[in-house]
Amino acid sequence: MRLSRYFLPVLKENPAEAQIVSHRYMLRAGMIKQQAAGIYSWLPLGYRVLRRIEQIVHEEQARAGHIPLLMPTLQPADLWRESGRYDDYGQEMLRIKDRHERDMLYGPTNEEMITDIFRSHVGSYKDLPLTLYHIQWKFRDEMRPRFGVMRGREFLMKDGYNFDLDKDAALHAYNRHMVSYLRTYERMGLTAIPMRAASGPIGGDNTHEFLVLASTGESEVFYDAAVTELKLGDREVDFDNRDEVAGICQEFTTLYARTDETHDAALFDQIPEDRRKVGRGIEVGQIFYFGTKYSEAMGATVVTPEGTKVPVEMGSHGIGVSRLLGAIIEASHDDKGIIWPEGVTPFPVGIVNLKQGDASTDLACEGLYKALAAKGLEALYDDREERAGAKFATMDLIGLPWRITVGPRGLANGVVELTSRRTGESEEMSAEAAVDRIVQVYAGHR
Amino acid sequence: MRLSRYFLPVLKENPAEAQIVSHRYMLRAGMIKQQAAGIYSWLPLGYRVLRRIEQIVHEEQARAGHIPLLMPTLQPADLWRESGRYDDYGQEMLRIKDRHERDMLYGPTNEEMITDIFRSHVGSYKDLPLTLYHIQWKFRDEMRPRFGVMRGREFLMKDGYNFDLDKDAALHAYNRHMVSYLRTYERMGLTAIPMRAASGPIGGDNTHEFLVLASTGESEVFYDAAVTELKLGDREVDFDNRDEVAGICQEFTTLYARTDETHDAALFDQIPEDRRKVGRGIEVGQIFYFGTKYSEAMGATVVTPEGTKVPVEMGSHGIGVSRLLGAIIEASHDDKGIIWPEGVTPFPVGIVNLKQGDASTDLACEGLYKALAAKGLEALYDDREERAGAKFATMDLIGLPWRITVGPRGLANGVVELTSRRTGESEEMSAEAAVDRIVQVYAGHR
Repeated sequence: MRLSRYFLPVLKENPAEAQIVSHRYMLRAGMIKQQAAGIYSWLPLGYRVLRRIEQIVHEEQARAGHIPLLMPTLQPADLWRESGRYDDYGQEMLRIKDRHERDMLYGPTNEEMITDIFRSHVGSYKDLPLTLYHIQWKFRDEMRPRFGVMRGREFLMKDGYNFDLDKDAALHAYNRHMVSYLRTYERMGLTAIPMRAASGPIGGDNTHEFLVLASTGESEVFYDAAVTELKLGDREVDFDNRDEVAGICQEFTTLYARTDETHDAALFDQIPEDRRKVGRGIEVGQIFYFGTKYSEAMGATVVTPEGTKVPVEMGSHGIGVSRLLGAIIEASHDDKGIIWPEGVTPFPVGIVNLKQGDASTDLACEGLYKALAAKGLEALYDDREERAGAKFATMDLIGLPWRITVGPRGLANGVVELTSRRTGESEEMSAEAAVDRIVQVYAGHR
Repeated sequence: MRLSRYFLPVLKENPAEAQIVSHRYMLRAGMIKQQAAGIYSWLPLGYRVLRRIEQIVHEEQARAGHIPLLMPTLQPADLWRESGRYDDYGQEMLRIKDRHERDMLYGPTNEEMITDIFRSHVGSYKDLPLTLYHIQWKFRDEMRPRFGVMRGREFLMKDGYNFDLDKDAALHAYNRHMVSYLRTYERMGLTAIPMRAASGPIGGDNTHEFLVLASTGESEVFYDAAVTELKLGDREVDFDNRDEVAGICQEFTTLYARTDETHDAALFDQIPEDRRKVGRGIEVGQIFYFGTKYSEAMGATVVTPEGTKVPVEMGSHGIGVSRLLGAIIEASHDDKGIIWPEGVTPFPVGIVNLKQGDASTDLACEGLYKALAAKGLEALYDDREERAGAKFATMDLIGLPWRITVGPRGLANGVVELTSRRTGESEEMSAEAAVDRIVQVYAGHR
């Protein structure tokens, strides 16, 4: 993308309404614009990151064998009357009447609707196991929306639902989600720690939240420092192998890590003192096993191999897709701006032309731009007639992890400069070598 | 995808509520499920086609230089009070009050919001031309939703908005959209004819609708048969070249083609009689030039090179993404089911195992499945223990354009069978040759 043709409305001033760094940088980098309290437009740069995050979620769901579909944003109230949650949900549910005065709502979650889909089409153990998920906009009418996309009213969520014949199979689905989420967050450059949680309005006993450590987090967290060292990495996982998947879950949930809701001071005190940590965390996902809570209420049954009808075992599993942009920025920034992890960056690399209009630098930049494109990497090429300082400031603010700087002096020596946003370190090399390096960096990411 | 692990709830019976073939087949092929009047869940197969269509739209918008973003589904009423459309829009607008009794609405279109984004961030001719678009769910509270996704209430639309300094530039944007839409529809296997239209509530004089000929279409259309022979094909288009783009538009709009709204009997009668056609059409898109209607009302101005402030010139351009699934099926089916064009098919090819459980056919099918996957083509492999007839009927119903049939008799001769859904013709060949053929067919499509 050539910046002269892009829409990247960066702000020089800090917006007064933004209280936390992610909100501030998302506004300043021209990623979002507020349209109403807790309701945002995703401007082109923000939209690109949102799509990257969605893509990673889809890929990791596919790896775990989960099937995507898409449920609508609006739901009939009657479904929620069946489960009994229509009255329980309170003012956070946005209730709507259509022109025929029928009661509708903007879905805050989809347990009822997915159970309705299941009961309409599935009736036999032969069609199990089944896990369906979607990535769709939700609405929760928060009393005081704040912190930008971190606590918005209209927000994008991945929510998945497993259907299984018995509790063991459903717990395997629970574990499968935990493992797939671990890799999902790692690919986004995050350390997201699964912590035992309280269940809230979804119901169910087995539930873990995934928390990203950040001083602006909404939850107080207590953990063993060793838990932050755990990595799933690239290991091959057979998601059909219950023992293997359960083993990984055990590896990631044995060390103490809890939110204030489930904190146990006695257990916490058993951690060696130098590893005993108290901090704050941002919730970026949650998994639940809740058994037959919805299937019983809504009559979603399956016939067992023995010929009896039983309510199907279920769980639900969510990732806060739009909120993740905020969480990633909270976890990865400095005083100049955002530092995107390679997995989610809106553009893999920026090209800064130090002397726009100079025939040789223009030619070199175009060559770089096309060589990267030929490798499937779309650079953001700052081809504006601007001072170098302004170009660097924009690149630092929007946080592309790599920058290639092209100027007449370097070109005279046959080199360009490759700079890491994270370390700030620069290295001179030929344009070809810079392209090769970028290709290599992203080989594992796209 | 292995069918034994997929969620494809096909129906044997024709659903009573479906009046037109696309609605019937989408229900029978397990593509959609109605959740309320005019509100659908997109089951996995339907969701895949929806994503394919979105992908083509994005690619063609990128080719034309248009920039994607994403606006929210809910909008504050105040924006619509500024343009004067809040009161005009009538009962089709879904009006909502949030917990603080603020007036909101579920966006039926986005002229107001995009104008608000523009005026907040752009003030100079230097940032023009600019075209922004999004693909987002809309809601129109139709009195009588019907025909499945063809006239739903919650529907997915691509809507784009151009911002230009003067009328000539805005008309170039209009033409650019026409040309990019021509290729968009062609890639979906459709002949969509641009027809002069009436403007309706968007406003503006220059407007064309794109209509797909189908006997179930909602509009009566009058056209010169020669117009259906026009093809844009693979020609390279320089979207910055005004004359070139205008020339293509002229090529596609000179022959007579109008809806009943703009029909001119005197002009129509000048067409040679054997080419004079009256039929019905499904609207799948519309483009508008409306000048300064919204920019004046909402104060979206730019400073010209001469230093004066003028309201920005605009137009808006829509593609009915979810409705396209219905339109494509109306245009491409037979009495056995859907016939997907290669560009939008949910899976490029189906594999039918005639003897599931037989070691050699299972092995051959797995080999085919993996060989196709290695080429980036995800087959739908029917690995269920079902009769051959049932497997064929499912494949015919869901309409994958190609099927590879693997049976013990063929394998004994070293061959599988490759069948075209469109022609019904089959050919025997080695498994390798079948893979090569499929790769070749899709080379231009993905």
